[in-house]
Amino acid sequence: MTLLADVLSTVFERRYRPFGLKGAETRPMDDMANELVGSSGETSGLALAERILSRFETMSDDEKLGFFRHLANAMNIDAEAVRSALEAYEQTPSKNSYRAFMAASEPRRQELIRRLNGLPGATGALVRMRADLLRLGRGEPELEALDLDFRHLFASWFNRGFLVLRPINWESPAHILEKIIAYEAVHAIDSWNDLRRRLEPRDRRCFAFFHPAMPDEPLIFVEVALTKGTPGSIQALLAEDRDTVQPEDTDTAVFYSISNCQTGLASISFGNFLIKQVASDLASEMGNLKTFVTLSPIPGLGPWAAGQGLDLPSDDPKQMRALAAHYLINAKREDDLPDDPVARFHLGNGATVHAVHADADTSDKGRAQSGGAMVNYLYDLGKVAQNHEAFVTTRKVVASSEVKSAANAANTGQAKER
Amino acid sequence: MTLLADVLSTVFERRYRPFGLKGAETRPMDDMANELVGSSGETSGLALAERILSRFETMSDDEKLGFFRHLANAMNIDAEAVRSALEAYEQTPSKNSYRAFMAASEPRRQELIRRLNGLPGATGALVRMRADLLRLGRGEPELEALDLDFRHLFASWFNRGFLVLRPINWESPAHILEKIIAYEAVHAIDSWNDLRRRLEPRDRRCFAFFHPAMPDEPLIFVEVALTKGTPGSIQALLAEDRDTVQPEDTDTAVFYSISNCQTGLASISFGNFLIKQVASDLASEMGNLKTFVTLSPIPGLGPWAAGQGLDLPSDDPKQMRALAAHYLINAKREDDLPDDPVARFHLGNGATVHAVHADADTSDKGRAQSGGAMVNYLYDLGKVAQNHEAFVTTRKVVASSEVKSAANAANTGQAKER
Amino acid sequence: MTLLADVLSTVFERRYRPFGLKGAETRPMDDMANELVGSSGETSGLALAERILSRFETMSDDEKLGFFRHLANAMNIDAEAVRSALEAYEQTPSKNSYRAFMAASEPRRQELIRRLNGLPGATGALVRMRADLLRLGRGEPELEALDLDFRHLFASWFNRGFLVLRPINWESPAHILEKIIAYEAVHAIDSWNDLRRRLEPRDRRCFAFFHPAMPDEPLIFVEVALTKGTPGSIQALLAEDRDTVQPEDTDTAVFYSISNCQTGLASISFGNFLIKQVASDLASEMGNLKTFVTLSPIPGLGPWAAGQGLDLPSDDPKQMRALAAHYLINAKREDDLPDDPVARFHLGNGATVHAVHADADTSDKGRAQSGGAMVNYLYDLGKVAQNHEAFVTTRKVVASSEVKSAANAANTGQAKER
Amino acid sequence: MTLLADVLSTVFERRYRPFGLKGAETRPMDDMANELVGSSGETSGLALAERILSRFETMSDDEKLGFFRHLANAMNIDAEAVRSALEAYEQTPSKNSYRAFMAASEPRRQELIRRLNGLPGATGALVRMRADLLRLGRGEPELEALDLDFRHLFASWFNRGFLVLRPINWESPAHILEKIIAYEAVHAIDSWNDLRRRLEPRDRRCFAFFHPAMPDEPLIFVEVALTKGTPGSIQALLAEDRDTVQPEDTDTAVFYSISNCQTGLASISFGNFLIKQVASDLASEMGNLKTFVTLSPIPGLGPWAAGQGLDLPSDDPKQMRALAAHYLINAKREDDLPDDPVARFHLGNGATVHAVHADADTSDKGRAQSGGAMVNYLYDLGKVAQNHEAFVTTRKVVASSEVKSAANAANTGQAKER
Repeated sequence: MTLLADVLSTVFERRYRPFGLKGAETRPMDDMANELVGSSGETSGLALAERILSRFETMSDDEKLGFFRHLANAMNIDAEAVRSALEAYEQTPSKNSYRAFMAASEPRRQELIRRLNGLPGATGALVRMRADLLRLGRGEPELEALDLDFRHLFASWFNRGFLVLRPINWESPAHILEKIIAYEAVHAIDSWNDLRRRLEPRDRRCFAFFHPAMPDEPLIFVEVALTKGTPGSIQALLAEDRDTVQPEDTDTAVFYSISNCQTGLASISFGNFLIKQVASDLASEMGNLKTFVTLSPIPGLGPWAAGQGLDLPSDDPKQMRALAAHYLINAKREDDLPDDPVARFHLGNGATVHAVHADADTSDKGRAQSGGAMVNYLYDLGKVAQNHEAFVTTRKVVASSEVKSAANAANTGQAKER
Repeated sequence: MTLLADVLSTVFERRYRPFGLKGAETRPMDDMANELVGSSGETSGLALAERILSRFETMSDDEKLGFFRHLANAMNIDAEAVRSALEAYEQTPSKNSYRAFMAASEPRRQELIRRLNGLPGATGALVRMRADLLRLGRGEPELEALDLDFRHLFASWFNRGFLVLRPINWESPAHILEKIIAYEAVHAIDSWNDLRRRLEPRDRRCFAFFHPAMPDEPLIFVEVALTKGTPGSIQALLAEDRDTVQPEDTDTAVFYSISNCQTGLASISFGNFLIKQVASDLASEMGNLKTFVTLSPIPGLGPWAAGQGLDLPSDDPKQMRALAAHYLINAKREDDLPDDPVARFHLGNGATVHAVHADADTSDKGRAQSGGAMVNYLYDLGKVAQNHEAFVTTRKVVASSEVKSAANAANTGQAKER
Repeated sequence: MTLLADVLSTVFERRYRPFGLKGAETRPMDDMANELVGSSGETSGLALAERILSRFETMSDDEKLGFFRHLANAMNIDAEAVRSALEAYEQTPSKNSYRAFMAASEPRRQELIRRLNGLPGATGALVRMRADLLRLGRGEPELEALDLDFRHLFASWFNRGFLVLRPINWESPAHILEKIIAYEAVHAIDSWNDLRRRLEPRDRRCFAFFHPAMPDEPLIFVEVALTKGTPGSIQALLAEDRDTVQPEDTDTAVFYSISNCQTGLASISFGNFLIKQVASDLASEMGNLKTFVTLSPIPGLGPWAAGQGLDLPSDDPKQMRALAAHYLINAKREDDLPDDPVARFHLGNGATVHAVHADADTSDKGRAQSGGAMVNYLYDLGKVAQNHEAFVTTRKVVASSEVKSAANAANTGQAKER
Repeated sequence: MTLLADVLSTVFERRYRPFGLKGAETRPMDDMANELVGSSGETSGLALAERILSRFETMSDDEKLGFFRHLANAMNIDAEAVRSALEAYEQTPSKNSYRAFMAASEPRRQELIRRLNGLPGATGALVRMRADLLRLGRGEPELEALDLDFRHLFASWFNRGFLVLRPINWESPAHILEKIIAYEAVHAIDSWNDLRRRLEPRDRRCFAFFHPAMPDEPLIFVEVALTKGTPGSIQALLAEDRDTVQPEDTDTAVFYSISNCQTGLASISFGNFLIKQVASDLASEMGNLKTFVTLSPIPGLGPWAAGQGLDLPSDDPKQMRALAAHYLINAKREDDLPDDPVARFHLGNGATVHAVHADADTSDKGRAQSGGAMVNYLYDLGKVAQNHEAFVTTRKVVASSEVKSAANAANTGQAKER
């Protein structure tokens, strides 16, 4: 598959990538932004966009904040203009009056972001810009509103229809692989050898979504182990000296790590599609795969137990497993959704709680966040749609009978649950 | 370059392409559309999107009109909701109030179109859907307003930053080449041999813009001849028995045909970018190319002359050339822009009127539309930006002194010009 | 552009292709050939190779003959030198004495051809050179011997391990497709539309072998129809208005045309590998394909019948079929191999005579060569190896019982068979 | 997925790679080898070849030796047969008698190796087989002779015309890069970060030759630094904290490391072509590059000095430089070629001794082998051909006047030079 990866990554024109190489730009950013939106033609637009984006990348946080505030305030909607355009449209609904309303009700900053994106190679720069905005704008209502404009446009540009699924393997380009190492957020990859152990064996797979306009940047990736039976611990899965299972002997695909790569794409959801696409592709490629599960952390368990005044019974596997099962099934937020964020994600996708394991992640991180417990969520492709509907409607956590039994054995003592 | 073309066209996942293969769908389209917009999760969304798009492609024009009217009316903005969201936002500008305003001021049909586009492969289907809308909705104000929503989204999805420039040559895939034959709108290609004569010789080039989500569909393409000196007729350029010029002997690139391919992308402008990108790429590839011109038709000349009560002096080359020059420089619309649409396009791009030729297109079509006259517009890459600005501001047609002299010799008799 | 260039240069470096562009070369070819073989280093070798090959392509047939005779005579082995090197080796077998023997027993022209092939892009030129040799050298013993040297080297360079199988379809590059049109030797392709009918439908396939050093030149290709049941006529298979069969409804792959493309690769056999590779690939891709057959002409039937003084009973299908079956099973050459060359090829590959059809090729060519009869050879992948062995050993034609019955009904009258 | 598959199979068909996966093969290797050569058809040949190659890879060294001896003896030429075929050919030179002579004078083991190579993917296995032969057969005349047969065939298969030059960079596949790390033979690469420093900066390049039948195995690679001026030490070139030079500011390309990768391709020369091809490509890509030099070790200097009873004056740069210059110019082998093997290689390629530096490689290895001295060989593309001819003819070392001056200052005391 070597060349395949190579080939796909050449899709996009790369000549525009190096921003910031041009001579110093001294015009105020706000002026340039105003001009870009007002620019009557596309002719000078691209040059202006390049200057704005290059300049932004060299700005201090204070300068960036100033720029964001300009967008948030000077380029916001004009309520009066919206109102009068709306009235005109109500009186005479026509192409022209509707166009005028559209123009008035959309803040000019959206058009600015779109025009910046007209520059080939700019999409990645805009994603980084939003990462800055999320970091700097927290708690400032105007900037949080501005973020909604970024998010609105990004949701349109990064929708499923534009994403490309690519396998990541030991024949992938090194500059992509180093990003996999950097972005792995669940079970850290500590060296190129560690990476190779997750990519090269015949019973390991990895897949990522890419956007054609950011061919060098994975958006999200999932690591998969092909196993015989459902695994009960991450240590066994990642052991350096484990034996490779022959693909024809496997019956289960385990999604053991899912990592979002781009801070600037927060709240743009890809994980749901990724898991289902990969499960579906693997199922059609390998007829012997019958079960698709995750091996997931329970990051909310530790904090929840602490809130309940409970100690995690890490050294009593049976109790630990029971508490984890109880937590996953019964601990809810005020909106009646599960307390655990990972559970919310998978149950919202239509998965179910399949099995719970103690001593499943004995790393320091695993011990700390969940007393070493982990959980398998089951993706039954034939049922995810109805599970999803049921979950959205009833918010009921569907769990296997084993997990329910385990939960019943939990001794939560005086714990007062919400 | 064979494999290159191959490779690029494999960019996108093709597995979703065949719409309409599924079993008959009998639910009303309007219901499905409403459900898709209301759908709480992405899970069932893709399946629904596929059903809607498959169904649409099999519908009669009347049914399509019905569907469009549903979008135009039932999925329009609710003026009262806009007004109250606006007021709430004015009173308390916050992330939440802004989000509510955004939701209210955008008609739900935009979200519908976005969700339909979430289906891999759907973009082309939506472009075809808009082509239907343009055809069926003409003159119906609600449907013309609906078209603005399509256009708004398409402008965002098809902006320059997402387009890919690809050379088209005799090593390109046949299924792309047959589309070049079909879409050529200026000088018809009458056979594969004719096509080969325009692609294979070393002094001929062709380039097209593609969108990654529609890898098999050129959006716009330009045919280029590399010549020694500026050519004065299309016959000479396309002669079957002409001699190929060695690339190192050429000094001029002639853009002799530009064709938009997708009716459904009307008013989404690519031509400006295409010409400048190709000119810039050719300039850096071949140092000997010094002049970049078009060889363009003057489609407005015939109708204008008829409107003036003038006969085209086709058989007097000198008078014909004078009249064409005069028309290009002096004939204006009420908005003071040039009467000729091709002139408006190139002058708007920052080109200038460089030379005018009689007997330059002796085909029936050429005789009929402009008495056989054609024009070279000059793209001077160092000046297009300022030319563009000047033209937008002053609407003055910049022409070479030769063309101005020719225009002065025009005998327009009693013609009353606007 | 890095990876793009990477990919392309993997397929093959193309920059050297255009021979013959350099200034006139006036040194005698023989001198250049001698120098190239004698050249102590590789440094000047490539330039010399290019001059020789460029020059050759511009030479007249007489000049080419002169060059071939130089290779055949002046660059032949020296019998005395062979003899003394052989004796030295016999006396003292060592690395040095063996090297000396190798050098003496191989004519210098083989080294010349190898050094010419050291030039990137030269392989195709050498294949064309051999085509000239085959054409011009017929009947001249020295030149026929020289051809054995070409053939010896080509067998090594074009062995199965170096060949690449590629699908040919409607998305293949036009310059490859036009070669398919040109090289089709069995059922002529009369237009691009005809070609498209053989490539684009979902029940049609085409595959070719390529050599990495000649990436633009198919070596051999096979056209395949996926059908339900074994077809009995080529007219039905190629009918313009036929219905496409859904792939899932097919059970049979029909190899209905196999064409060698390169005259200069005569006697270098690819067809055997091609059919088995394609059959094996299709079998693993589509589980429903159970039968792999050809639909083959019987080109030897007409000439044989004429030699027997028999008229072909074209208008009596039953008799025609019987005669064809009889011919295939019983008509032998002096070496006891089947008289029909196509039969020799397929039976030698391990196929069997499966079915015979009258009125199966009603074209003028089909009528003339075999009274319209055609034959299906069956490739049973599990049995081809043992069939092949049996055929090589016993030369017995294995046929289905139907074909044997038909043969028995043949009325060959007074025909005296060998 | 059509074209995707197309592209991949163009690079090379990979499905055959995994040898040794089949069930245990118990037939004696010699029998299988005899059968493969005798095999009348290609049909069973590929299966047999796979069995032989799979089996070989699992054999012990003793078993391998046994197999090699079988090839060397039982599959050698038959002197009597050669003699009689030669006589028959002398008496009646014809196609048939020449064919018989060809068959007799080539040992059957050559045909065996060719047939093994008929298996797709086998080329790499045969290269590994020869590596075993070189290792095990040293000093055994029959096996050294057998090696000449491998070498003869490999020279034909791996000639320049079949090689593909590919850039190696930080976007190359990881499984290729790890081989670059492993094969670097001059200045060891100690980590992925070290590798990245040699590949990623804009002033660093790397190129390798590949063979289409071994797409995952570089054959030879060269590392290049683009510099301003000729560098005088490897430490400066590889310093971790050096500044990247902008490509437009460079004037010199420095070939600072050339490594052969395949033991089994010993004596098949690629280096000459690689350097010249890369120099020529870089020259046409970057007009500002005017000088092409190596920065090379002088591995023969230390041993030579020891043989002369001289101590290397490592701590006297001036003397050290003088001694190195003297050595390179004057120290000769008995055949009058330079004593230093690296000097023989570059001077044989047509390069000249350009500059000599003390303290240029201060690593332990550099100190030990040449007292830290290094040398730049100059590749003047316009002169390499005539330099090469002159060197081959006269064996005179061409050096710059500075180097000659330095050599004159050498104090070699009583040293008696050959």
